[in-house]
Amino acid sequence: MRAIATALGALALAAFLAAAGSAGASDKAARFDASGKMLFPADYRTWVFLSSGHGMSYNPAANAAAEAPFDNVFVDPVSYRSFLKTGTWPEGTVLALEVRAGTSHGSINKSGAYQSGEPLGVEVHTKDTRRFGKADDGWAFFPFEGGKPATMIPREAGCCSCHAASTAVDHTFVQFYPTLLPIARAKGTLNPAYLAEEKTEGH
Amino acid sequence: MRAIATALGALALAAFLAAAGSAGASDKAARFDASGKMLFPADYRTWVFLSSGHGMSYNPAANAAAEAPFDNVFVDPVSYRSFLKTGTWPEGTVLALEVRAGTSHGSINKSGAYQSGEPLGVEVHTKDTRRFGKADDGWAFFPFEGGKPATMIPREAGCCSCHAASTAVDHTFVQFYPTLLPIARAKGTLNPAYLAEEKTEGH
Repeated sequence: MRAIATALGALALAAFLAAAGSAGASDKAARFDASGKMLFPADYRTWVFLSSGHGMSYNPAANAAAEAPFDNVFVDPVSYRSFLKTGTWPEGTVLALEVRAGTSHGSINKSGAYQSGEPLGVEVHTKDTRRFGKADDGWAFFPFEGGKPATMIPREAGCCSCHAASTAVDHTFVQFYPTLLPIARAKGTLNPAYLAEEKTEGH
Repeated sequence: MRAIATALGALALAAFLAAAGSAGASDKAARFDASGKMLFPADYRTWVFLSSGHGMSYNPAANAAAEAPFDNVFVDPVSYRSFLKTGTWPEGTVLALEVRAGTSHGSINKSGAYQSGEPLGVEVHTKDTRRFGKADDGWAFFPFEGGKPATMIPREAGCCSCHAASTAVDHTFVQFYPTLLPIARAKGTLNPAYLAEEKTEGH
């Protein structure tokens, strides 16, 4: 799991979410067992695709090779439709980050990289203030291995603080989701810190 | 359009498709105007995501940089569900290939690449033997620019011959779609030429 831990840790865009809010229990994209573990969202590959990255990292020296992993981010369809209207995420949002190996040479491909094999890991990011309280505005992370129920990542682990400090919209890396960023801009939901960063970068 | 032409031309995985078959007119993922041009499938981003590649090329020297474009491939949900059952594509399948710019430095990302901006282009691949006849088993390509109706790419352009010769399943690059490849293998729908290639490559 070192590769996946590195990939997930390095991933600048660990940005996703889960279920609840005003929706009925049957609509929830995130489900939990009696001990509070999240059940694996087995249908996430048919949710709405937000974007993918390749070898993304905070570290300039890391992952620049073609064989670096890809990450694919999906969001549950109900929350996606809500975002289109509001520019931000409702209670119950679930984002799933999937990491897959990158392969440069295979079949007719001779350069660049494509995705191959089973997922190296899936991490879910969900917003549920009733379950998780007001800390981090109700967002929590759950790392899955092999479809087994997942335990919440402790808030001290660094995911939450980075998602609080560096994300464009409500703890999520909408700056890396090209179909959502213009919507958030139009709706005025971009975080002030992100807007300041954009200004510094000369966008 | 040179960048997109290069990206599309280089793309080893121009693999997608369109609507019709036994479905009623209202179910069709591909629609055409009276002159035979395909209308832009405006909702393709909510179809089922198959995979993405980064800088993929037939050419070993091309597109290896982080700033190389990404390609995202989506399929209409009806045809996706059919593939899960049969391991191949039904009449009316529509695949959409979207190309987006790759960006390496922005926000907290310092290595690798993420997708940014509006699509550089969208190309649709559709299977419709009633509309297109038996040539290429009914498959045809339509390149879109800015949402305007698209004219079919001539069969002589090379897309069709490559898709006939090098694809894993029925003119589509399923070898680059990691969730579909195991299904095709289990269902016995992989093309003989692809199986021979796999053997040569030592899979």
